[in-house]
Amino acid sequence: MRIVDLIEKKKQGKEHTKEEIEFLINSLMDGTAPDYQISAWLMAVYFNGLTEDETAILTEAMINSGEVIDFGNLTDSIVDKHSTGGVGDKVTITLIPLLAAAGVPVAKLSGKGLGHTGGTIDKLESIPGFNTKLSVSDLIAQVKKINVAIGAQTQNLTPADGKLYALRDVTATVDSMPLIASSVVSKKIASGAKNIILDVKYGSGAFMKTPEDAIQLSKLMVNIGKILNKSIIAVITSMEEPLGRAVGNSLEIIESIEFLKGNITKGDVAELTYSFAAIALMAVGMYDNEEDAIEYLTEVVKSGKALEKFKELIIAQGGDADIIENYDKFDLPEYKIECESKKSGYVQNIDAYKIAYACKILGAGRDKKTDPIDYSVGIYLNKKSGEEVNKGDVLYTIYSNDPEKTKIAQKYCDEAFSINDNKPSHNSMIYKIIRADED
Amino acid sequence: MRIVDLIEKKKQGKEHTKEEIEFLINSLMDGTAPDYQISAWLMAVYFNGLTEDETAILTEAMINSGEVIDFGNLTDSIVDKHSTGGVGDKVTITLIPLLAAAGVPVAKLSGKGLGHTGGTIDKLESIPGFNTKLSVSDLIAQVKKINVAIGAQTQNLTPADGKLYALRDVTATVDSMPLIASSVVSKKIASGAKNIILDVKYGSGAFMKTPEDAIQLSKLMVNIGKILNKSIIAVITSMEEPLGRAVGNSLEIIESIEFLKGNITKGDVAELTYSFAAIALMAVGMYDNEEDAIEYLTEVVKSGKALEKFKELIIAQGGDADIIENYDKFDLPEYKIECESKKSGYVQNIDAYKIAYACKILGAGRDKKTDPIDYSVGIYLNKKSGEEVNKGDVLYTIYSNDPEKTKIAQKYCDEAFSINDNKPSHNSMIYKIIRADED
Repeated sequence: MRIVDLIEKKKQGKEHTKEEIEFLINSLMDGTAPDYQISAWLMAVYFNGLTEDETAILTEAMINSGEVIDFGNLTDSIVDKHSTGGVGDKVTITLIPLLAAAGVPVAKLSGKGLGHTGGTIDKLESIPGFNTKLSVSDLIAQVKKINVAIGAQTQNLTPADGKLYALRDVTATVDSMPLIASSVVSKKIASGAKNIILDVKYGSGAFMKTPEDAIQLSKLMVNIGKILNKSIIAVITSMEEPLGRAVGNSLEIIESIEFLKGNITKGDVAELTYSFAAIALMAVGMYDNEEDAIEYLTEVVKSGKALEKFKELIIAQGGDADIIENYDKFDLPEYKIECESKKSGYVQNIDAYKIAYACKILGAGRDKKTDPIDYSVGIYLNKKSGEEVNKGDVLYTIYSNDPEKTKIAQKYCDEAFSINDNKPSHNSMIYKIIRADED
Repeated sequence: MRIVDLIEKKKQGKEHTKEEIEFLINSLMDGTAPDYQISAWLMAVYFNGLTEDETAILTEAMINSGEVIDFGNLTDSIVDKHSTGGVGDKVTITLIPLLAAAGVPVAKLSGKGLGHTGGTIDKLESIPGFNTKLSVSDLIAQVKKINVAIGAQTQNLTPADGKLYALRDVTATVDSMPLIASSVVSKKIASGAKNIILDVKYGSGAFMKTPEDAIQLSKLMVNIGKILNKSIIAVITSMEEPLGRAVGNSLEIIESIEFLKGNITKGDVAELTYSFAAIALMAVGMYDNEEDAIEYLTEVVKSGKALEKFKELIIAQGGDADIIENYDKFDLPEYKIECESKKSGYVQNIDAYKIAYACKILGAGRDKKTDPIDYSVGIYLNKKSGEEVNKGDVLYTIYSNDPEKTKIAQKYCDEAFSINDNKPSHNSMIYKIIRADED
């Protein structure tokens, strides 16, 4: 078998055999397939796609390229959650202590964020001392002990995906459905959970711009899961505006703590956290309807157990749990600028991409994995969509360490808000839930 | 400017600017663009193409990546000829001494053949002592002295094309019209001729399988020539069956000598040689109609001047000119097997690809540029299309150094011939001539 013939085959739009895809991934791993051949194949895949079967085979080959976490007899009850990434998305941070406190073991490996704002790992690392570099055995031991652990993805899991992604990133082949699907699903399956909940975002701040694209990707991932004997549920959610009010690393941790304290009971973060948690409780068989599950979960928050679990998690991973009661223990930014609305009316929409871009300018994100991140900076949205605002009210707050950057960020934030006289209708955050065997 | 953005742009089917293509080629040459990015771009070009302007810009950038041969005041009258490659194609070898003897200076740089049979350079190197490794200054001096020189392409000319071609070869991106066109035209223009005649083949033994594809490629190359201020004439010719009777390196030289001796006056080799030569004479303004040009060229052969010029060429490049009178001075193969026809009738067609494959098995071709070639082996077609054959007549002759390989070659040759009772009509070898400003 020769790689050039496999490229030719995909270029002609033909379907690969299992042996061919395994040969491709093995050759990638042992270095016999040079990057320039893999990247040409990736571009051919971009244009001609992969079938569901090919995508499942690719996913499995990537899983088999590295270590697979084995939780033993805990496997079937473990829940993992993944988001395709959105601006201000702290739902992983609110969800996992809640689920763990509710009795569902959660093991989560997360990637470092590339792009405009940090990823979950970056956000957690804004907690002084918090260690995300868990070994696989640490992760397993901690889940067994306190029901929850969250670590940075290691190179040992799906190294083939790591290599492929690095190539895709520099060859404009990231935005291919089967490549996205196999990348996400292979990492989740290798992480050891049987029950996987995927938050697939669409909208201006998300990778998928339309709900149709999000549905297509979701169906593909759910079906791959079925082929590979895992329970994957995809929840398609809107990312037209930032999730919650805080965008920026420590700001988002603070907002998450506020949720866990029971101080945020409405709005998008609460809606999504409870919905995902209920789906998880139903997936592991603890409840058979959403209403009962949410009632129970609300009680878990109210009782303080969810917050207590987050404290346990922070302590278990070496962090300073005092931040829960004293937010001044986070790195503080030099400037906090409250920006006023220039008009009155209702907030119609807040462009997630522009807010993210403003945060990037402030230093909250990175281009390269080695770039440093400023945990302290970010944007707080004092007003969200559907809320009334009067001229002169504080519309948003900029947390910054640089006056020049503040000015540019302010320009983008002002552009992000659209305000007019009509009171917009409230839409559910959840567009559709995709389970196996559904259309 | 970033290469990844240029890949994305071409992936989206957008048109590159001049600056972008020059940046791409410069980055390829200085090593700042890694091969894996270039190959992804090549695959995007395969799918989305390049416009005529983009192709001309790419061609010019490849020309400017290396040395450009300058024939000084001879430039405008110099003719170069290129064939897209066909089985048994020795028309370069018959044409250039004829043209030189007719008073048209010819400078030809040719590539080593990859594939089933050797290239022009390999064929010439079957002449004992013949040196094709001419420096640019040797080439120029020899053309000025005896009106003709033929050398192997040097790495100094269009090195960007060399790099791109090496990548295309291993990434299944060879068969892209704009990439083929820019590769051919850049090499020809860098070789210094103002008048370029391209033999664009179509058929089973050629790269372009249909006349439509050949026309598309031809128009593109002719138009690039116009944009870059060169006179390119493309002649679309059939390669349904091997050209001439000999396929194999020294066998083809012998057939060429027979033409130059005036012993081959009919058939495809004679037709193409005279036609190309007449087009060249008209291109440089020596004649204004084909009939007069061919009458003069026929006289140049009959008078022995063309053969004499070939002798001069061989001697000038260090070869043993005695081979002209004594074919035994070539390396001789161990076996010469005359294979008989198993049926009677008219030869309808001889599959060029199968004959080429048989020659490859015998050792006449190569897979890698470093592979050795057996100059002595090949196939002689005792019967060609349109000729009557009786059961038991010699159909073809195998020249071989290995009885096992002979058997396999014989199987392919037998399959190559189709013979039945109908006398086929004779078709002209030339399908169409494409000049600038023509449809």
